[in-house]
Amino acid sequence: MIQPIRICLVGAGRAARVHANSIANRLPQAELAAVVDPVADALQATADKFGVQNRFSTLEEALQGVDFDAVVITTPTFTHTALAVAAARAGKHVFMEKPMALNLHECDAILEATRANHVFLQLGFMRRFDPEFTEAARRIQAGQIGQPMMIKSLTHGPGLPPPWARDLTTSNGMLAEVNSHDWDTVRWLMGSDYERVYVEVANFKGQARGVDTPNFYDNVLVNIRFNNGGLGCITGVCPCDYGYDARVEIVGEKGILQIGELQGQAVIICTDRDQGLVTPIYRTWPERFAQGYILEMEHFVHSILVGTPPKVGGEEGRWAVAGVLAGTRSFLEERPVRLSEVLASVEAGS
Amino acid sequence: MIQPIRICLVGAGRAARVHANSIANRLPQAELAAVVDPVADALQATADKFGVQNRFSTLEEALQGVDFDAVVITTPTFTHTALAVAAARAGKHVFMEKPMALNLHECDAILEATRANHVFLQLGFMRRFDPEFTEAARRIQAGQIGQPMMIKSLTHGPGLPPPWARDLTTSNGMLAEVNSHDWDTVRWLMGSDYERVYVEVANFKGQARGVDTPNFYDNVLVNIRFNNGGLGCITGVCPCDYGYDARVEIVGEKGILQIGELQGQAVIICTDRDQGLVTPIYRTWPERFAQGYILEMEHFVHSILVGTPPKVGGEEGRWAVAGVLAGTRSFLEERPVRLSEVLASVEAGS
Amino acid sequence: MIQPIRICLVGAGRAARVHANSIANRLPQAELAAVVDPVADALQATADKFGVQNRFSTLEEALQGVDFDAVVITTPTFTHTALAVAAARAGKHVFMEKPMALNLHECDAILEATRANHVFLQLGFMRRFDPEFTEAARRIQAGQIGQPMMIKSLTHGPGLPPPWARDLTTSNGMLAEVNSHDWDTVRWLMGSDYERVYVEVANFKGQARGVDTPNFYDNVLVNIRFNNGGLGCITGVCPCDYGYDARVEIVGEKGILQIGELQGQAVIICTDRDQGLVTPIYRTWPERFAQGYILEMEHFVHSILVGTPPKVGGEEGRWAVAGVLAGTRSFLEERPVRLSEVLASVEAGS
Amino acid sequence: MIQPIRICLVGAGRAARVHANSIANRLPQAELAAVVDPVADALQATADKFGVQNRFSTLEEALQGVDFDAVVITTPTFTHTALAVAAARAGKHVFMEKPMALNLHECDAILEATRANHVFLQLGFMRRFDPEFTEAARRIQAGQIGQPMMIKSLTHGPGLPPPWARDLTTSNGMLAEVNSHDWDTVRWLMGSDYERVYVEVANFKGQARGVDTPNFYDNVLVNIRFNNGGLGCITGVCPCDYGYDARVEIVGEKGILQIGELQGQAVIICTDRDQGLVTPIYRTWPERFAQGYILEMEHFVHSILVGTPPKVGGEEGRWAVAGVLAGTRSFLEERPVRLSEVLASVEAGS
Repeated sequence: MIQPIRICLVGAGRAARVHANSIANRLPQAELAAVVDPVADALQATADKFGVQNRFSTLEEALQGVDFDAVVITTPTFTHTALAVAAARAGKHVFMEKPMALNLHECDAILEATRANHVFLQLGFMRRFDPEFTEAARRIQAGQIGQPMMIKSLTHGPGLPPPWARDLTTSNGMLAEVNSHDWDTVRWLMGSDYERVYVEVANFKGQARGVDTPNFYDNVLVNIRFNNGGLGCITGVCPCDYGYDARVEIVGEKGILQIGELQGQAVIICTDRDQGLVTPIYRTWPERFAQGYILEMEHFVHSILVGTPPKVGGEEGRWAVAGVLAGTRSFLEERPVRLSEVLASVEAGS
Repeated sequence: MIQPIRICLVGAGRAARVHANSIANRLPQAELAAVVDPVADALQATADKFGVQNRFSTLEEALQGVDFDAVVITTPTFTHTALAVAAARAGKHVFMEKPMALNLHECDAILEATRANHVFLQLGFMRRFDPEFTEAARRIQAGQIGQPMMIKSLTHGPGLPPPWARDLTTSNGMLAEVNSHDWDTVRWLMGSDYERVYVEVANFKGQARGVDTPNFYDNVLVNIRFNNGGLGCITGVCPCDYGYDARVEIVGEKGILQIGELQGQAVIICTDRDQGLVTPIYRTWPERFAQGYILEMEHFVHSILVGTPPKVGGEEGRWAVAGVLAGTRSFLEERPVRLSEVLASVEAGS
Repeated sequence: MIQPIRICLVGAGRAARVHANSIANRLPQAELAAVVDPVADALQATADKFGVQNRFSTLEEALQGVDFDAVVITTPTFTHTALAVAAARAGKHVFMEKPMALNLHECDAILEATRANHVFLQLGFMRRFDPEFTEAARRIQAGQIGQPMMIKSLTHGPGLPPPWARDLTTSNGMLAEVNSHDWDTVRWLMGSDYERVYVEVANFKGQARGVDTPNFYDNVLVNIRFNNGGLGCITGVCPCDYGYDARVEIVGEKGILQIGELQGQAVIICTDRDQGLVTPIYRTWPERFAQGYILEMEHFVHSILVGTPPKVGGEEGRWAVAGVLAGTRSFLEERPVRLSEVLASVEAGS
Repeated sequence: MIQPIRICLVGAGRAARVHANSIANRLPQAELAAVVDPVADALQATADKFGVQNRFSTLEEALQGVDFDAVVITTPTFTHTALAVAAARAGKHVFMEKPMALNLHECDAILEATRANHVFLQLGFMRRFDPEFTEAARRIQAGQIGQPMMIKSLTHGPGLPPPWARDLTTSNGMLAEVNSHDWDTVRWLMGSDYERVYVEVANFKGQARGVDTPNFYDNVLVNIRFNNGGLGCITGVCPCDYGYDARVEIVGEKGILQIGELQGQAVIICTDRDQGLVTPIYRTWPERFAQGYILEMEHFVHSILVGTPPKVGGEEGRWAVAGVLAGTRSFLEERPVRLSEVLASVEAGS
């Protein structure tokens, strides 16, 4: 029997548990080698839940204390670069959650470290593995709707993000923490890079939820022009309270294609004709993308086993970060922002 | 301008008001000439609502008191035959609600009177005019799903029928009063007559609603074999309380076709992720078949104006009654009943 | 019996025939008094189809030649002002198709003429009368989804608009000719006026369809900030080829609400498991808004009969024009445009 | 780490590969110990695909040749009893596909052998583990729709069954081979046993497909009366050609509940307004019940690991067989058949 790929979870929060579940309960070719988290409670809860004995408060300790093949990084974004670079330098393959990093310099550092150390880098863009998204991509790439002209992608999340994720001094806010998936999706399915973006934001619930962070917003509407002349729209609402909502609609020269729906299960009930039909909605992202989470981790494990690079890596992560940076600049400066501005600042070393 | 067809409403209840609305508010080529009802309150309410001055307690008075071209009969089933025959003999075209009559003798009397007096007879099978049913029929007849093999039709109504309609001594019960439409639909879309039927019934809510009529049932499940070898299923639930529900599903040699859905409007709302999505259901039959009711009356008026017979007449009504009679005998005698038994009893003069 | 409202159709094209059908075949309280069109073929075809004897090539002739109560104006936008003003001065009530006019000066001229002559003015925003839109508005206004935060409205039309409607020198292009309805809808349902707009456009099919008009676009993506802080998105695709598509999605503080769907009929068929389910789409706008077209005309007729102003008039039409003007300026100048710029230019007399 | 449960696949056909996939690729706590099949090609193909070295042509050889904990029996129904009894006597836990056996004597032999040898017996009623079915069951059992009054369950399968499965001398035909799931589902969700059944069958495609087996049918319509007075309807169509279709609808005293839908994925496309919307259908049963197949096997493995009996065992399998026997007798004898007739014949030793 093949020796399973040994994985060290770096981060023990909610996303970590989703990946741990895939590894421990659905992927015989992988196993949990260790869990790392500086927060003792989270570390213990997650390690206990999945029966992992090796527990560390830092990645450094884990690297010294136990043998493994790869890391799965689910810590806050501002810690990504140091952890990914350290793992890469230790020869570990890297699976990391989105957003890749805070800026393009960090993205480049990660890309460089993984390349230099000949390890794989996969970004947690699970929508690329969701059966509905992959079927849609297949149809688009087969030309079924012709050249895409306009694409809309939305992600609405139920709950308020953690403080660091809604503060523009410690993250890139909702555009990054919630909508990174949309940035990747629209570029993937349009088959073109962003040329310029214009963003409007709104803050409806912040005050009532006790958020007084400057520039906090809970609604965002992104208008994108792509290099190929296509148009894109990304929207984010978080907290939306009503459920987890991720849908895409693409109009091509020959037709329209929709991915996803609000309905979470084909169970319909009606007990009151004044209320009408009731059907479950997706409540959370692990529910909506249950298959995608397993399939992306299976892909990562399989990539390591067979030695071929994962199909969603650092370049995709870096483009999403670039979009976020242009978008944030747009709403702060109240003007359309070209990607060339954002990309030039890196090349110029700023 | 063409002189509008003048119509006398015979019956002033709920179905009468649906037809009155079509005539008064949606069909410029028709007008309400009179309303007839022995119940003074209903007569006044309906005549007032539609601004009709000519009001009578009997059809005979109406025939003597005012000039008109046609009657629309919506009275209880046990009154149908006398009214339809009287109208026909007076040279009035007849539109009558389902079920046509209580038995095949009565059906034959109506058929004979309308034929002998050269007036048109149209049955209120509005599903034959509903845009979804007609589109489905067009596709089936064009061979899109091949030869139909199995058809299921259901009608579930929200409220308890009136006492006369749930008593087998004054009506043929739910099989007739609710499911006449299904009897007509399955025969129409299968393109074949019933060969034999088997029926099971149940009574779940009768006692709690104070119904102690013998043989009352509020659930019925009909199993049909057609002459062409096809199979059919009719179900009725009344009172179902949850809304008005009328749907059909047909499996043909080449595929499946569904008609109708529970959803009454494309308005979807979600405000609670534990409850899920909510969308309106059809609450009542006038809502579900709003178009069908207008279109069937337009067809009747148009038939009179141009002098061609309506496309749904007494033969269709008579077949539905025959199915009901066989079905009722089936559950009373707990055995499958061939239509030939029911038809033979008429020919034999019994 | 009440004397029907006599209506003169001004314009004999496709929209005219939709309204003529409502008046002639579905609204007993109205009648077609005359048809006006300078194009002899269209005039004859429409007048013949609805049996109208009074036919004129100009409104002036109609005003002299026949008596009527109201006009229904469906001619190209650039003719709206002169016709509406002439009708108003002759004491005729005015129903006019969208967009109201080419600019705010024209809108003001129409508003002034109808007010001064005490006639009613109704804009052809039939979505305000569509049962799904009105049910949605009722729910929003009842607070079911809380304060709206983000609204998206789209209209995709199947075919290439006529030459005058795609040329910015003779119209305001797709933003006006296709998306006027969306401009009205988002303002209505958000319950707030536009503060600023940003627009991107694309031209994918123009060349292949032989359109070489400068600034022609067939895709448009509008980003709106409302005065109340809410966000709005309007998209237009025309020609989209795949059908007629008009849908709205609103996220409020308490939940989400969707209006409309792609599915045009609840008829589903499957005959090939590789192809999958097939269900009709709305093919054209008269199909999608069949009810809305009847109900808006019934409202106009009823308003005249009872003497109360229609609920969708010149102010709504003027706001839609203002949005269009700001949007067009935005994509031409590649910057967000505040409505105050557009409104100020009128007040300044420019 | 826990020692995985070692499983011997008995049968190497299509159902075997579905279970093998769960065990090999999705359930770390189980492993494939051996594959058994007398057909050398199937044996090799399946064992190769899942990398299983231990291959045998009979269960007896496997029992002697390799150590394992449990069998998964997917061979033709007429072999079930001997294999299950042999496995049980060897102390192996038994997971077996439906239908359990050909008659109640066989069912009793299996039940007795598993009880006597203290091994677990689980029937392959994967719908009991499908997330939509379990959510529906939870809601029904929580009283959301009140007492179920009428339940309809259908299974339509795309392709012609193998010869043995369509011949009443070697199987119980479609009622058993296709509709066993429905028999179990309606009893489970109604919460009551069958009292009597009436069945009609039809044969539309047999001749064209070269089937001349006596009593072959490709359409079946079952009418059930339950002991609690409720009604049930089961339909089967096989080959239906259009896809795999498994849906349930239950009407209770308080409302209606639907399980499942034709749509196989939330991907909708439209490229031709005359054709309309197209969306994938479930093509095969492994697609439709992908989750259910994993979850039922996880349940079996978990039951063994923790030592608690599986929740769907021999009693459920036996009741489904009893329904099938009554149903077959009904259409052969053209009369309703009480379950007591079928059950009595066993007790009487016939």
